Amino acid sequence: MSALEAGRKARVGVVGVTGYAGAELARLLLRHPRVATPVFYLRDGHSSVHCLSELLPEFLGWGEAPCGPFSVEAVARSGADAVFLSTPHETSLELVPELVKAGIRVVDLSGAFRFTDPETFAGWYNLQPPDQDLLQSAVYGLPELYADRLPAARLVANPGCYPTSVVLGLRPLITAGIVNVRRGIVCDSKSGATGAGKEPKRELHFVEVDQNMRAYGLFTHRHTPEIMDHTGLTQRDFIFSTHLLPVARGILSTLYLWLDGERTAGEIESLYRRFYAGRPMVRIRPAGQLPDLHHVVHTNFCDIGFALDPSGERLVVVSCLDNLGKGAAGQAIQNFNGMLGFEEACGLK
Amino acid sequence: MSALEAGRKARVGVVGVTGYAGAELARLLLRHPRVATPVFYLRDGHSSVHCLSELLPEFLGWGEAPCGPFSVEAVARSGADAVFLSTPHETSLELVPELVKAGIRVVDLSGAFRFTDPETFAGWYNLQPPDQDLLQSAVYGLPELYADRLPAARLVANPGCYPTSVVLGLRPLITAGIVNVRRGIVCDSKSGATGAGKEPKRELHFVEVDQNMRAYGLFTHRHTPEIMDHTGLTQRDFIFSTHLLPVARGILSTLYLWLDGERTAGEIESLYRRFYAGRPMVRIRPAGQLPDLHHVVHTNFCDIGFALDPSGERLVVVSCLDNLGKGAAGQAIQNFNGMLGFEEACGLK
Amino acid sequence: MSALEAGRKARVGVVGVTGYAGAELARLLLRHPRVATPVFYLRDGHSSVHCLSELLPEFLGWGEAPCGPFSVEAVARSGADAVFLSTPHETSLELVPELVKAGIRVVDLSGAFRFTDPETFAGWYNLQPPDQDLLQSAVYGLPELYADRLPAARLVANPGCYPTSVVLGLRPLITAGIVNVRRGIVCDSKSGATGAGKEPKRELHFVEVDQNMRAYGLFTHRHTPEIMDHTGLTQRDFIFSTHLLPVARGILSTLYLWLDGERTAGEIESLYRRFYAGRPMVRIRPAGQLPDLHHVVHTNFCDIGFALDPSGERLVVVSCLDNLGKGAAGQAIQNFNGMLGFEEACGLK
Amino acid sequence: MSALEAGRKARVGVVGVTGYAGAELARLLLRHPRVATPVFYLRDGHSSVHCLSELLPEFLGWGEAPCGPFSVEAVARSGADAVFLSTPHETSLELVPELVKAGIRVVDLSGAFRFTDPETFAGWYNLQPPDQDLLQSAVYGLPELYADRLPAARLVANPGCYPTSVVLGLRPLITAGIVNVRRGIVCDSKSGATGAGKEPKRELHFVEVDQNMRAYGLFTHRHTPEIMDHTGLTQRDFIFSTHLLPVARGILSTLYLWLDGERTAGEIESLYRRFYAGRPMVRIRPAGQLPDLHHVVHTNFCDIGFALDPSGERLVVVSCLDNLGKGAAGQAIQNFNGMLGFEEACGLK
Repeated sequence: MSALEAGRKARVGVVGVTGYAGAELARLLLRHPRVATPVFYLRDGHSSVHCLSELLPEFLGWGEAPCGPFSVEAVARSGADAVFLSTPHETSLELVPELVKAGIRVVDLSGAFRFTDPETFAGWYNLQPPDQDLLQSAVYGLPELYADRLPAARLVANPGCYPTSVVLGLRPLITAGIVNVRRGIVCDSKSGATGAGKEPKRELHFVEVDQNMRAYGLFTHRHTPEIMDHTGLTQRDFIFSTHLLPVARGILSTLYLWLDGERTAGEIESLYRRFYAGRPMVRIRPAGQLPDLHHVVHTNFCDIGFALDPSGERLVVVSCLDNLGKGAAGQAIQNFNGMLGFEEACGLK
Repeated sequence: MSALEAGRKARVGVVGVTGYAGAELARLLLRHPRVATPVFYLRDGHSSVHCLSELLPEFLGWGEAPCGPFSVEAVARSGADAVFLSTPHETSLELVPELVKAGIRVVDLSGAFRFTDPETFAGWYNLQPPDQDLLQSAVYGLPELYADRLPAARLVANPGCYPTSVVLGLRPLITAGIVNVRRGIVCDSKSGATGAGKEPKRELHFVEVDQNMRAYGLFTHRHTPEIMDHTGLTQRDFIFSTHLLPVARGILSTLYLWLDGERTAGEIESLYRRFYAGRPMVRIRPAGQLPDLHHVVHTNFCDIGFALDPSGERLVVVSCLDNLGKGAAGQAIQNFNGMLGFEEACGLK
Repeated sequence: MSALEAGRKARVGVVGVTGYAGAELARLLLRHPRVATPVFYLRDGHSSVHCLSELLPEFLGWGEAPCGPFSVEAVARSGADAVFLSTPHETSLELVPELVKAGIRVVDLSGAFRFTDPETFAGWYNLQPPDQDLLQSAVYGLPELYADRLPAARLVANPGCYPTSVVLGLRPLITAGIVNVRRGIVCDSKSGATGAGKEPKRELHFVEVDQNMRAYGLFTHRHTPEIMDHTGLTQRDFIFSTHLLPVARGILSTLYLWLDGERTAGEIESLYRRFYAGRPMVRIRPAGQLPDLHHVVHTNFCDIGFALDPSGERLVVVSCLDNLGKGAAGQAIQNFNGMLGFEEACGLK
Repeated sequence: MSALEAGRKARVGVVGVTGYAGAELARLLLRHPRVATPVFYLRDGHSSVHCLSELLPEFLGWGEAPCGPFSVEAVARSGADAVFLSTPHETSLELVPELVKAGIRVVDLSGAFRFTDPETFAGWYNLQPPDQDLLQSAVYGLPELYADRLPAARLVANPGCYPTSVVLGLRPLITAGIVNVRRGIVCDSKSGATGAGKEPKRELHFVEVDQNMRAYGLFTHRHTPEIMDHTGLTQRDFIFSTHLLPVARGILSTLYLWLDGERTAGEIESLYRRFYAGRPMVRIRPAGQLPDLHHVVHTNFCDIGFALDPSGERLVVVSCLDNLGKGAAGQAIQNFNGMLGFEEACGLK
């Protein structure tokens, strides 16, 4: 797959713009310097909509992008260099095979194509798994780990928001072999409410979320197997928890590890810096400085900081990102940049 | 120490009403059915204030309690059955010995008298430790563990807000001996901003806290030794972290443990229920139901719930309370009730 | 209607406890010193619930009040001194006539019986109006204006939350005849989200309300005719607007008036103080001090403050209350206190 | 003043980047396609800072712009095409005359140069007024009204955030002569907390602002004379109020007017559309659709909507903007675009 002929802007389509991640995708693509005005494909119930701002009034005056009914033929006819799917798992399961078959490159934001093993998907999502060949060909779109596979990818499975923060925080330590995994790793993640979707539900009512915090999905969260696949941990090795925060955007994961011996803060910091050298979207904080949600919200950065106890054996890592940015739409564009040969951070700063 | 003569209301004083815990104490004492109108003692800069509502306008029309300058003599003259100190550590270090010497029973909300070992206080607080005899005589005011010591107590050291939530969550499991302590315990605590005090600071500005979350005090938080003292854990056994939440009130501690063998949710639940049988201010949730901040804010309850992984070996406990209620002022009154022979939950429901 | 025989606690029932106002009513009645444990009557879908805490877990351990299916007979059999209806307009339209006919005294929190003129209700609510005789016999439950009618009342129509704040702010000025009504009065009201009900809706999703503010219901809000009826203003004389605030509780109404001549702040303040002399639930701020939501939330107070421009002709009044307290459940209890001969503020401080 | 030679990027400096408006200015300028990396000039206490991200860690990895000590010479030497001052009134009073004298074009975000009459400034700000000639030469930077004066401007006084929302909402109606001004106009404005500055203060503590709302500055707010100057209203004609909202960003002004006769919604809408025809940063909503903060936050738009009562005589206008965008930094860049001959919305969408 070669890069775009010089100067031409990429043509892209987006399926599913009514959710929070889809709207963020629109916002980012409309500002992307290498992308022509995207086309938004709608499924049911929006046949009268011809322009994005009719659907989302905040785009009035700057996001007058065309909308139209989705069909594989319409996407193919548009000559799209890639299409983004910000759709439910079920919809992606249905549309992705057809799009790929039609020769259209896909970045899928759902969970449907994130696993090599169909059983993993079937077990955690309680849905019919996708075709195994398609699964095998999909690239798990965490560019800090798998950027080299993007140029040739026909289908990129964009990672979950929680796993992005957890895997980016753990992977350098596990790869370096300095973690005493047998003592157990704890990943305590907290997310803003956009992560829970736009559908009105009792537990997402303003009054229920505001001034509140709660844990949910303990031992059952669907993002668990992504963490296992990309850290090598087994379920017995770690506990992953998720909490709902009274904020709109942002994930903060606090990661707890016992090291296999005494380390210095300088060692830990340089280990992280080496691992992410040349990767523009991960920022390592100096030892003792911790990132927070404000540093990353409305950006595509994943910020990582840590604290090491004086004995050098207990380590706490804080990994932060915007669940709609690096955790969804921003990362999708980062993957798209890799597929089309653009700079990794193009349109994301 | 015998209970109050029948029918007489208790006379109490409060030193330090300008902070968040002090105002909560005022709110609760003014509604306490066994307490006469409390007297509020002010230190510097408030000599012209004679009535609580001059200081705190929200008390206008129902909290017209008298205010006056603090002196040990004034408190003694008032015939106070007990006095509450909601003052900085330094102030408590100065006032408590004098009050106790004058025969006045004290509930101190600061950290100054919470440790048996003076070195612990000196090391973590970086202040001159209190007199050892006084320290030895002080009762650590966690009534669920030490209620039997309250009737005779002359000085009660009211626990920190974080340790209350953590110790109440861990103690039954550790006492039962079912935790694999060598794998390590993680205590990830999150608190609302009233816990950080009323003093204006950059990091407590609305714009900095709102839509944000951050970890702080890793490996250095002063509440750490209280957890050690009342669970028997050593520093190497656990990691305790604290986070600032964008809410005014409430603490949620998520506690992670590996058990020493496979257990059932029923065993865990009944272990908790037995441990807290007859204790009105701890509520145990049925297995699988987790408490949240809304359940406990503006109450004196500590709510505890848990989730056990299917293999029965990994356990997550969620312990919630109101940092100004069970974490400070409410617990102070619960201790006071124990000292004076009132029902434990009197004035707290 | 004479007061309760000395010493006996009142027996009350509550229909509709699943909404925010109903839960607040439960909270207040469970603490009311002159009320026995209330009975909660449920309508459809809750036949298996026998205890309040099964429905609302926050009541666990202190609100173990009985629940049962609603019927007029069940309420009559219970010997209820009064019953509270925290039900939709339609339900109140159906139940109130039957309850009153059965000789049961009713405090209705819906809008169904707030108007003398059936046409007013029909026009603004688009529902079949109630029986005219019943309407005529209903007392509009704003005790600061109509307390003398409460002892004999069989049916009290509890006012809307917005009109309570607006009418209490305007009435003293209009009664005094110092307003230049022909210049127009503006009532700009802002409310927290509990005022919009508990039903999950897109526009009440946390993400939509948080960090946002919007006006709604301009010129069409159903609370408009209550303001007209109890201030004597006609629609042309004033504009009433409502806004949704990103807070759970509280209403702040900013009222703008041109006076008919130059006045001093002292005159305005004493006019308010005289009007509300002896009324415990309205608090007047000294000239230049304005109330805010924190002063009134979780109370039954309506706080009123004002600013007068130096020329003495333009007046801004700020009137604050808790929409679930003085704006709903608290005021219902204040009315109930008046009906049964209790002190007006009994159980409300 | 001719436009920049083709292709060259503009050179700009910024004085005052430590406040909220300054940081927003940095964010916008760093993304502006016609602007070279800006230079940030620091005043006291920051001599060791050489790079923006040392001061503001959120700029790490994308805002590595140079910082240096401020002096008029340093700015002159840099060949700056314009310099932005996001400084206190007092600082602008001191620096602006020197910069202008040195031939440097200035956009000043303070209130110091917003008035033609020095007495107005002196009276409302209680500071020594600026030199009258300089005042006379300053352009009030509301491009929707005064864009034609920008190309020749040497000094632009960037408007206040509140007046921007109020004047843009009122001006078309007043110009059209359809308002019955003698009945009085009410401007009820609500702002997020970034508008109150970054300085830690008790009343800006998270706990004080969260779950709260309060009115402030009644009849004394310094933004009042800007509204008078640019609408032609006298103080007796209107009341302007300001409120603090529990949100970080955004202003919503609700404007109340009585018309001089009956109008239709269509007339009002087309009046607004004609007035702002060709102005990219004002968006008019169709009759009956009201803007809210979410539509404008993080944008440079001012959104205007309205509701007309059925009689056609009472009008409510809602005008929204981001106080850091169109209310400060965004508008400053819009003015700068006008000064340098760039497209009005360049870098602002």
